[in-house]
Order: sequence, then structure tokens, then C-alpha cells
Amino acid sequence: MGEIAKLLEAELVGDPAVVITGLSGIKEAKEGDITFLANSRYLALADETLASAIITSKDYSQPLRKPVVKTENPSLAFTKISEYLWPQGLYHPRGIHPSAIVGKGVFLGSNVSIGAHAVISDGVRIEDNSVLYPGCFIGGESVIGRDCLIYPNVTIREKTKIGARVIIHSGSVVGSDGFGFVNVDGRHQKIPQTGIVEIQDDVEIGSNVSIDRARFDKTVIGKGTKIDNLVHIAHNVVIGENCLIIAQAGISGSTTIGNNVTLAGQAGLVGHITVGDGAIVAAQGGVTKSVPANTIVSGYPARPHNQAKRLNAYVSRLPELYKTISALEKKVKRLEERK
Amino acid sequence: MGEIAKLLEAELVGDPAVVITGLSGIKEAKEGDITFLANSRYLALADETLASAIITSKDYSQPLRKPVVKTENPSLAFTKISEYLWPQGLYHPRGIHPSAIVGKGVFLGSNVSIGAHAVISDGVRIEDNSVLYPGCFIGGESVIGRDCLIYPNVTIREKTKIGARVIIHSGSVVGSDGFGFVNVDGRHQKIPQTGIVEIQDDVEIGSNVSIDRARFDKTVIGKGTKIDNLVHIAHNVVIGENCLIIAQAGISGSTTIGNNVTLAGQAGLVGHITVGDGAIVAAQGGVTKSVPANTIVSGYPARPHNQAKRLNAYVSRLPELYKTISALEKKVKRLEERK
Amino acid sequence: MGEIAKLLEAELVGDPAVVITGLSGIKEAKEGDITFLANSRYLALADETLASAIITSKDYSQPLRKPVVKTENPSLAFTKISEYLWPQGLYHPRGIHPSAIVGKGVFLGSNVSIGAHAVISDGVRIEDNSVLYPGCFIGGESVIGRDCLIYPNVTIREKTKIGARVIIHSGSVVGSDGFGFVNVDGRHQKIPQTGIVEIQDDVEIGSNVSIDRARFDKTVIGKGTKIDNLVHIAHNVVIGENCLIIAQAGISGSTTIGNNVTLAGQAGLVGHITVGDGAIVAAQGGVTKSVPANTIVSGYPARPHNQAKRLNAYVSRLPELYKTISALEKKVKRLEERK
Repeated sequence: MGEIAKLLEAELVGDPAVVITGLSGIKEAKEGDITFLANSRYLALADETLASAIITSKDYSQPLRKPVVKTENPSLAFTKISEYLWPQGLYHPRGIHPSAIVGKGVFLGSNVSIGAHAVISDGVRIEDNSVLYPGCFIGGESVIGRDCLIYPNVTIREKTKIGARVIIHSGSVVGSDGFGFVNVDGRHQKIPQTGIVEIQDDVEIGSNVSIDRARFDKTVIGKGTKIDNLVHIAHNVVIGENCLIIAQAGISGSTTIGNNVTLAGQAGLVGHITVGDGAIVAAQGGVTKSVPANTIVSGYPARPHNQAKRLNAYVSRLPELYKTISALEKKVKRLEERK
Repeated sequence: MGEIAKLLEAELVGDPAVVITGLSGIKEAKEGDITFLANSRYLALADETLASAIITSKDYSQPLRKPVVKTENPSLAFTKISEYLWPQGLYHPRGIHPSAIVGKGVFLGSNVSIGAHAVISDGVRIEDNSVLYPGCFIGGESVIGRDCLIYPNVTIREKTKIGARVIIHSGSVVGSDGFGFVNVDGRHQKIPQTGIVEIQDDVEIGSNVSIDRARFDKTVIGKGTKIDNLVHIAHNVVIGENCLIIAQAGISGSTTIGNNVTLAGQAGLVGHITVGDGAIVAAQGGVTKSVPANTIVSGYPARPHNQAKRLNAYVSRLPELYKTISALEKKVKRLEERK
Repeated sequence: MGEIAKLLEAELVGDPAVVITGLSGIKEAKEGDITFLANSRYLALADETLASAIITSKDYSQPLRKPVVKTENPSLAFTKISEYLWPQGLYHPRGIHPSAIVGKGVFLGSNVSIGAHAVISDGVRIEDNSVLYPGCFIGGESVIGRDCLIYPNVTIREKTKIGARVIIHSGSVVGSDGFGFVNVDGRHQKIPQTGIVEIQDDVEIGSNVSIDRARFDKTVIGKGTKIDNLVHIAHNVVIGENCLIIAQAGISGSTTIGNNVTLAGQAGLVGHITVGDGAIVAAQGGVTKSVPANTIVSGYPARPHNQAKRLNAYVSRLPELYKTISALEKKVKRLEERK
């Protein structure tokens, strides 16, 4: 415990000699584990947990029978301990596997690893320390920055630009053609999609995500933005920095998203609109027009969240409303029949 | 026909000498085919179909001009005939393809097949008779039970545990990192996802499905549960036995699903809730709180299905309601104007 | 400019000597670019754009300070210029890569290209000029027509029939098993999916799309239909010609779609229904019954779009309605209390 408190530069209340052998959630913890209290939903479990120690926020004051480490940010402390207990990269491929295909004019920085059966096309550039798992395809002239991690069976099409420390999970596709057609005599004729995709530093992309290349110019995922699984990002979409795009959300073509925006799960946005900084689209929200900064919208068609909730409450009360009106009609009839 | 009735241990009404050469749906059937009546929607087609024979339930009594095989369960009978006419596995790879990469310390049971360009990482264990198609990636120390079938280009990340008789379709990803970040000074810092995924016996997983590994502990898909295409299952989700999770449904982190639950297409569930045994979420339902056992919910936000239908009917009648109220207002005005 | 006007067989208003070096959107254009006015939303930008020339429709009459090329169809003109400036196929693999696995009895037409680590199973037929990128899997006895383009890591299962000029983007799966089970004593038993998928000429399929094979007979994608990313198409679905199926839409089993139908993003359709020619399902529409030809439906459950919009407006006015009724109740009470 003393060692962990030191690692976290945090205050320890309790016995520094307690030995920690694992790290776990507050419900699943067993003896020897350290756990943490980040979500107030689980406050009641602090005394029940089998964990041998607990990480809490600094202002946690309830007395506990086990050692407590008080930190500014319990979740961050969890991350530090996790990295301390489980060194990352144990399962990463190392070196260039002999079955990998590396094209002409490829530049590989120092300490790059490329897994079995990966295909690196002509003219690709991969910076220092990046790791590509087996089965990845990197299209011609794409650039992958340093310290990137590309999981198995990812496809990155030609001329894609990827920054540093980007993580892309399996099955995702970056740079597929945008969905663009022009109707000529009743048939849909393909519009060439000659632009690119730019993924900036510190972006993480979940599994089975589709990000289309621009018709011209570029589709952009801003620095530090995190994208969950099965998300669709159409051509010419521009997403700002530090956004959270949750699973199965979809963004139509040429829509622009500000910084620090959250699109919750299964949200859908039409094309050619703008979502302002700090805005939140609730789960399954269907956004049909631009969203101002720092607002929350929900429902279909998406409305300001407070309004949507109020309308929803009114809809719930419709059965009584119909009864009220029926009663009123009878009363009015009786009043009309009074002489 | 006689042979088929014998295979099904079923009653045959009609000529046992009729020769059956194929098996088809009631609408598509041609002469020589046997077809079946499982869905009452198609009752009217029983006499029109070109099929040479029909499988029906035991209580089917309408006289038909063609041979009828009466069984307890026509769909099951269909399956038996189908397996009899078309032996499975005709297209499966056989043996270990020389281009497959098999790591150190890998255990392969008897009769395991591994297709071209598949990658089996160090320490993996694959039990008897399992078949891996080309292009699959199995991460370090994962375990695949007996009689499994893994289709092309599936990714299974490290330390995943898969039971017996599991089928996984192409493009699916099991064990990608959960979507977990902690906000430190406005930036989203990754929380290591150190748990695993456990897929129990007899599970089937469709194509392009994403199942994330747990933050710690495990994400669980219970015995006999069937998952359709493009489904998202977040970290630490626990799904019970014999559930049906239909296409494009999504389940957020740490939600627990009971046994025999159905999530219809495009349904979405928030995190940290519970869905009771036997519950049903209708298509596109947006579930924001726990669902009791054996209830049906629908709509957004999801409500008990009968209530949702009633509210929906009331909403449909709003135009007349506004007229009614307008008329009432006039009448009341007239009443007020009466001396 | 003169050269471009000639290529387009179009009228040039302005200086034919202006030199065009690029092609861009009206907002992103810089000096030297030609751009185009196809969407009336951008009319105001025609004088502001930095582009050196503009393509407009024939009826565009506003005077501009830069050369204007007037054509019947500015988008089509754009496509022609794009193909002229950027020849297609620069990044396609050429020839049969030595690491590709080609099975027994495979027929390859002239000028077929197969990328690294692709796997072509026994009995496959691939017609002239088709290009398969690395990591593709083509199942036994499948047929791929001429001039097709299959991007990396696509999976095409056995016996699939693909027409000419079909494009399939990365991560898509054609011919995975339909989701079919029969409940036997509380367990879901798999129904063999013995049918196929037929993709007709000129179809384009986005990335990470799932198209299931039929239970029997076939799942059909009609000539000229275009499918966006992450779309789910269940077993035995039949889609007509020249449809647009936008991202993340899902179609349940045995539903039939006519010609020229549009399903907007995230739309969902139940099984066993029919959508008539020319119908449109709006984004996120949840279709629970058949849709007549040439109608627009939206919302959940999907209603005729005009009705849905009207109901939506009425719902927005519910807060005033409740106030109106409350006022009416008071007035009626006062009337009742009179004498």
C-alpha cells in the first residue's frame, strides 16, 4: 500500500503494510485487490466490498475499516495503478514479420512493428514505435505518426494522414469512398471521391467504424477525439477536438462538429449542419438542424432536451387529458341545456 | 416421401412414392420440392404452391391435394431435412493451411482446421474439430472450445474465452478495448481495459459485431444466446442464456441482461441497468432505465408496450382533439355571453 | 478553360485562356481551381469563392466576374472533370500477387488483379478486369462479374453471384448466414441457411455492410442500387433497382423493396413487408407495415410524412393546449356556479 500511495503521490489513511495483488471494480473485488470509488452510485458498497483497500476522492470523509488512498482523481489513480500492475503491450507483435508485405518507397521509423500478413502499400510512411497488428492494410502514400497502435484487420485506404498516438481497433475502415452519386437519366452515377481522411493526434477509433474519405478536400477527426464502435462518419465531416462519439452514432456528409461535443449512442445527424462546442446529442437523438454550442438536444426530431422531456411528460398525461376533455364536453352540454 | 417421413418420425398423409429432390419456401417452391407451413401468414398458399409435398403441424386438418407430413414442429422438421439434403461443411477449410501462422505454445486439438493466412498467436488453445476460416486473428492466450466455426476475417483479441459449438461470422471483433476514458484537464485519458470476454457454449455471433473486453473482470455472452449482425456490446455487459439480440442493437457498458431476453433490431440500452428474464425490447426501443422480467417495452424513452401503443394512438388523434377543444372554447364563450 | 468546356461540350461564358489546375468544393476552392454550383444552398457563395471558374446549370443567369461553364448537369460535369484530372485506379493492385491463394478449378478472366494475401476458394469464377485488393476472401463457387472492384478485407461467402461493375468497400460481408432459429424446448436451434446472395450489375456497397444469404432461394440487390456504410440486409430480402440505402439502415428478413426507393440513414424495416417503387423512408424511420409506392414515411412507428410532421407540430403545442384546457375548466366551473 505504501508503494501505491507513493506512486500516486497521495495521502494514505490506514496500514501501509497491507499487500495489494490486484485491482478490480468495487463489486467484483476480492481480498488482495485495491478498488476505487469514482461513481457516487456505488458509495454504499464502500464498506461491503471484499477489496483490501480503496481509492477515494480527497473529500471523502466517511470512516472505513480498510486503508484508503485519497486522491484528486480516483479514476486517474486507477489508470496509473493499472499501468503499474499490467505493463501494456504484452501481446503486441514485435519487429517486421516475414509474411508482411512492404511495398516500394516505404519509410519505416525506428522500432516499428508489423504483424503477420499485414500489407503496407507503396510510398507509405510509418513513424517511430508504431505497431501494426496482423492483417492490416495500409493504402498507398498514407502516413502513420509515431506511437500509433493499429489492431488486426484494419483497413486504411490511400493517402490517409494519421497523427501520433492514434489507436484504431479491429475491423475499422478509414478512407473508404464517400457515398456520392449524381442521378443521370434515372441511374446513380458515381462521383469520384478524391479527397482524404485526416486523423489528428491522440484520437482513438473503436472497432468496425467506417470513416469515409472526402469528395475533395478532407474528412477530419480532431485531436483527442474518441470514437466508439460501429460509428459512421460520412465524407467531408469535420469533427473538432476532444469529442466523444458513442457507439453506432452516424454523421452525414459535410456536417461540422465543434470541440468537446458528445454524440451519445445511436444518435444520427443530417448532413450540412453545424454542432457547436460543448453540445450534447442524447442517445438515439435524430438531429435535423444545427445545434447551438453548450446545448443538449434529444428525441426525433431533436429538440432542446428540457423541452423534449416536458413534451414527453405531456404525452404521458394524454390519457387523462382526453378524459378531462370528455368531462368538460358533458358539462358544457349540460350548461347549454339549462334553459 | 416415405424416406423423409421416416427421418422425421412423422405421420404421412398421401402417396409415399412421390419423389422429393429439393426443399424450398412455400412461395418459391417448384415441382419436386418439399416445403413447409410454419407461419400462419402463408396458410392461403398451401394449395397454390408448386411444391410436391408440404410439412405441417400436427393439428393441420385442411385437406390438400398433395402429400402432407404432419409433425410437432414443422420448422425443426425443415432443419432435419435440410441437413439431410445438404451436408454441412462442404466449403470449410480442412487441415492447417501452410500459409497460416501458428505461434509458440499453441495447443491444437484433434481435427482442427485453420485456413490460409490465419494468425494464431502464442499460447492459444483450440479444442477438437474447430474450424477457423482464412484471415482470422486469434490473440495471445485465447481459448476456443470444441466444434467451433469461425468465419473469414474475424478478430479475437487476447485472453478471450470461447466455449463449445460457438459460431462467429465474418468481420466480427471480440475483445476490443471498452470505451473508457477519464477526463483530465479537458483531455480524455484512456483507462486500460484489462478484463476479458467470455463467450459461453452454443452462442452464435453475426457478421460485423463488436464485443468489447471488460475494463476489469469480464464481458459475458451466456450459453445459447444468438446475436445478429452489426450489434454493439460494450465493456462489462453481462448477457444471460438463450437471448436473441437482433441486428444493430446496442448495449452500453455494465448493463446486465437476464435469460430469454429479446432485443429487437436497432434497440439501444443505456449503461448500468438490468433487463429481467424474458423481457422484450421492441425494434428501435430506447431503454433508459431497468426493465422488469417478462415485460415488453417500446419507443423512446421506452415505456411498457401497451402504454406506448395507447399513447401513440392518442397522439394520432391530436388533430381531432385540437378541433374538439376549439369547438368547446366557442361554446363556453357563447355560454359566458348569455346574460 | 477552353479544353474543359470542350470536354463537357458546354457553353463557356468568359475567358477560355484561364488555366485550371484543380477541382474543389465552392467553399474550399483556391485560385486555379474550378468549382461548381449544384446545391442552391451555396448560391450566395458564387461571387465569394476563390475558385478561378465555376460550373453552373444552363439556367443560371446571374453575372459573375469569373468564367462560367453552363451545363445541363453541373454534378455530372464535375464527375467528368474529376476523372479527367485524376485517372482512376492509381492505387489498385496489378496482376496476381504471389502471396495470394488461388484454389482449384478457379477461372480468372483476362486482366484480373488479385492483391496480397487474398484467398480465392475452389471453383470461383472472376471475369475480365476485376480487381481484388489484399486480404479479400472469396468463398467456394462464387462468381464475380467483369470490371468489379473489391476493396481490402472484404468477405464474400460461398456460391455468391456478383454482376458486372460492382464495387464493394472494405470490411463488408456478403453471404453470412441469415439469423434463423427454431425454438426447441427453450433452446434456439439453428436453421441451415442454404440459399445465396445475388448482387446485380452496377451495385455499390459501402464499408462494413452485412448482407445475409437466404435461408433458401436468394437475397437480391437489384441493378444499380447503392448501399452506404454499416447497413444490415437480412436473409431473403429483395431490393429492386436504383435504390439508395443510406448508412446504418437495416432491413429485416424477407422484406421486399421496389425500384428507386430511398431508405435514409438509420431507418429500420420489420420483416415480411413491401416497400413500393419510389417510396422514401426518412432518417431513423421505424417502418412496421408495408409502404405504398411514391410515398414518404417518417417517425416511429412510421407514418405518412405530412401526417408525422403535423402530429409533431401538435405535440410541440401541447404545453399551450394544457393551459387552454385548464382555463376552460375554470370558466366552466364559473358557469356552473352561476345561479
